[in-house]
Amino acid sequence: MDQAVEQEIQRIFGAAPFILGLGLRLQSLAPGECHTALDVTERHLQQDGYVHAGVQATVADHSAGAAAATRIGAGQAVLTAEFKINLLRPARGARLSCHARVLKAGRTLSVVESEVYCGDDGAARLVAKATVTIAVVARAAPA
Amino acid sequence: MDQAVEQEIQRIFGAAPFILGLGLRLQSLAPGECHTALDVTERHLQQDGYVHAGVQATVADHSAGAAAATRIGAGQAVLTAEFKINLLRPARGARLSCHARVLKAGRTLSVVESEVYCGDDGAARLVAKATVTIAVVARAAPA
Amino acid sequence: MDQAVEQEIQRIFGAAPFILGLGLRLQSLAPGECHTALDVTERHLQQDGYVHAGVQATVADHSAGAAAATRIGAGQAVLTAEFKINLLRPARGARLSCHARVLKAGRTLSVVESEVYCGDDGAARLVAKATVTIAVVARAAPA
Amino acid sequence: MDQAVEQEIQRIFGAAPFILGLGLRLQSLAPGECHTALDVTERHLQQDGYVHAGVQATVADHSAGAAAATRIGAGQAVLTAEFKINLLRPARGARLSCHARVLKAGRTLSVVESEVYCGDDGAARLVAKATVTIAVVARAAPA
Repeated sequence: MDQAVEQEIQRIFGAAPFILGLGLRLQSLAPGECHTALDVTERHLQQDGYVHAGVQATVADHSAGAAAATRIGAGQAVLTAEFKINLLRPARGARLSCHARVLKAGRTLSVVESEVYCGDDGAARLVAKATVTIAVVARAAPA
Repeated sequence: MDQAVEQEIQRIFGAAPFILGLGLRLQSLAPGECHTALDVTERHLQQDGYVHAGVQATVADHSAGAAAATRIGAGQAVLTAEFKINLLRPARGARLSCHARVLKAGRTLSVVESEVYCGDDGAARLVAKATVTIAVVARAAPA
Repeated sequence: MDQAVEQEIQRIFGAAPFILGLGLRLQSLAPGECHTALDVTERHLQQDGYVHAGVQATVADHSAGAAAATRIGAGQAVLTAEFKINLLRPARGARLSCHARVLKAGRTLSVVESEVYCGDDGAARLVAKATVTIAVVARAAPA
Repeated sequence: MDQAVEQEIQRIFGAAPFILGLGLRLQSLAPGECHTALDVTERHLQQDGYVHAGVQATVADHSAGAAAATRIGAGQAVLTAEFKINLLRPARGARLSCHARVLKAGRTLSVVESEVYCGDDGAARLVAKATVTIAVVARAAPA
């Protein structure tokens, strides 16, 4: 992957306080694809003991942004325009993981699909699926 | 509001670790409506200094659940089936607030719209709008 | 409204065979807004006698495009990037109407909300609500 | 496939005037899956000569309903609760086809993904992808 991409990916995972606080880690990257993971702890849960839909949405959205960022050029950045997520079943287990894959990489808009899995080791189930529309924009100059 | 509703609302805001950690507070409640707010701090931000889309999505989804919960009966609970959120402009400012309003309350499905505002005092702008489909389910007996 | 807008609106309603065949008519237009209507006949129905979700989606999408087109400049055209529609209740009645309103007009992306009503005269109910993301693009030169 | 399913599928494709008028044909069916096709003619087009987004949405939604119907029981029917569709590229060509696949079959809600392809023989491209939430309901008694 070229340097513009690497730089943007590093920014996405290393300079986003909400993602650092959540504990989301980049697992692997390929052109148009991104795998991420998160160790589930109590702070990720909602009132019934499942992983909060907001955590799943954050993971789906952020991983989608990273997958889209593997296809940008120098001086570009990614920005979520909109997304839709279906929560398929209660998310329960020690580990949440996500596989994001670019469905269409465009000059100004990319469409990415994110699948979110949850479970204990060796028993992850698909818990959510999202479709994310990403705007490809000029990167703002650092202040 | 009757006791079943009050109980569910209390659970939604008081027993969800992810929401407590985020700092989302219930501001006011009316039949089919819910206002919430959050003081923005650095931990809510993404890599460009804006409030992360995942925070906005969490607030939109959770407030929608509470708005739907104002219309349920005894022994019922709410569960997000899916949602879609459009990020309209970068979310910047000291305070994020949300107004969720039930568009259609059904026996098994409710549809709720959430508007998310962000800004400094007295200057909030609409930053995101979500449509949330909520499943009305039987409440699981406490363990 | 300026000439570029009028020209695009005329094209949208007068040069789209699927819309002409459906019978969708422009009722009124204002900056950022569009009202349309359709007389329901048997050909619009699905297997249970209600207006097909595809008809409602077409009306919501097309009206949203027209609403967005009221805010474009010379040499620009509108193109739907994506939309989401919630079908709130069975659509039944002699007349379907739609009110589309721009939520955010952007340089490259606009977000529009469409409300679809159905019923007999004087008794229309909200049957569907859509959120439509519209790309603002350079108009292709006529062949 | 059992008789309840066959009966519902027959109703979905044979008793829906809008689908008959559009020319959408069932190509094949398997548990949780459905293939459909449509010969594109001028009446399916929008103002730029592409297949209208409303046609693509109708095909995606209707095929999703059929895929979900392969998993219902006796006395049940399917009803679209909501869907989201991304238009990935202009749809051009003599033939539109759709592959709908159930992602999650639930007791009251099923989630289906529909991929829409368009092109001339032997050169179809993915033009749209939809996620459809289907409510599984009791079938109304025939009048």
